[in-house]
Amino acid sequence: MRSLIIIAHGSRRQASNDEVRQLAEQVRRLPNLPYDHVDVAFLELAEPSIPDSLAACAARGATEIVAFPYFLAAGTHVAHDIPDLVEQFSQAHPAIEVRLTPHLGASTLLPQILVALAANP
Amino acid sequence: MRSLIIIAHGSRRQASNDEVRQLAEQVRRLPNLPYDHVDVAFLELAEPSIPDSLAACAARGATEIVAFPYFLAAGTHVAHDIPDLVEQFSQAHPAIEVRLTPHLGASTLLPQILVALAANP
Repeated sequence: MRSLIIIAHGSRRQASNDEVRQLAEQVRRLPNLPYDHVDVAFLELAEPSIPDSLAACAARGATEIVAFPYFLAAGTHVAHDIPDLVEQFSQAHPAIEVRLTPHLGASTLLPQILVALAANP
Repeated sequence: MRSLIIIAHGSRRQASNDEVRQLAEQVRRLPNLPYDHVDVAFLELAEPSIPDSLAACAARGATEIVAFPYFLAAGTHVAHDIPDLVEQFSQAHPAIEVRLTPHLGASTLLPQILVALAANP
């Protein structure tokens, strides 16, 4: 059972949190999605928290979890806070394979993506 | 003469601003790039500002400027601040075609992009 968690910062502005939830819903609707379950998690200011979202995946029977930091910049959150929380979960659940991907802003494809989106948004 | 401006929020953390500058440099190196000039602009906390970056494009002889908001969430900055600054420039330079694209987080391709990046970061 494979889960994907989209990890966002979280905002006091609920509309921003809802944008992330809508993104997750759009991901769920993709054809041939290689995940059985897609959820969101917020580092702060919104729910569910990262530990709660990871625990919910475990409770659903996830055997593999991919955690994707939906961040543009590699600040302390991306470099330390998120890896620490994922590592804590991983140590408490050794039977679940947890993979933390690089953050969105680190993608080597981002330059091409940006130019394509600027042409055809 | 076509210019692309990548508009980021700007951060007190210089490394974050440098990440945006590095992204622009990667875009400049893309083959078959449909822009003669690629630059960055920051809404606040870093230089160049959006008006300064637009003015620099005009000074270089730009006839067309594409402004791409490198933002994930559609907050006040994306909805009002950036459009207002672009509109002010546009009114002062009617001979230059200025196109403000939707922000990164609004792309309809983002769900597919996210799944692809989670699989092959």
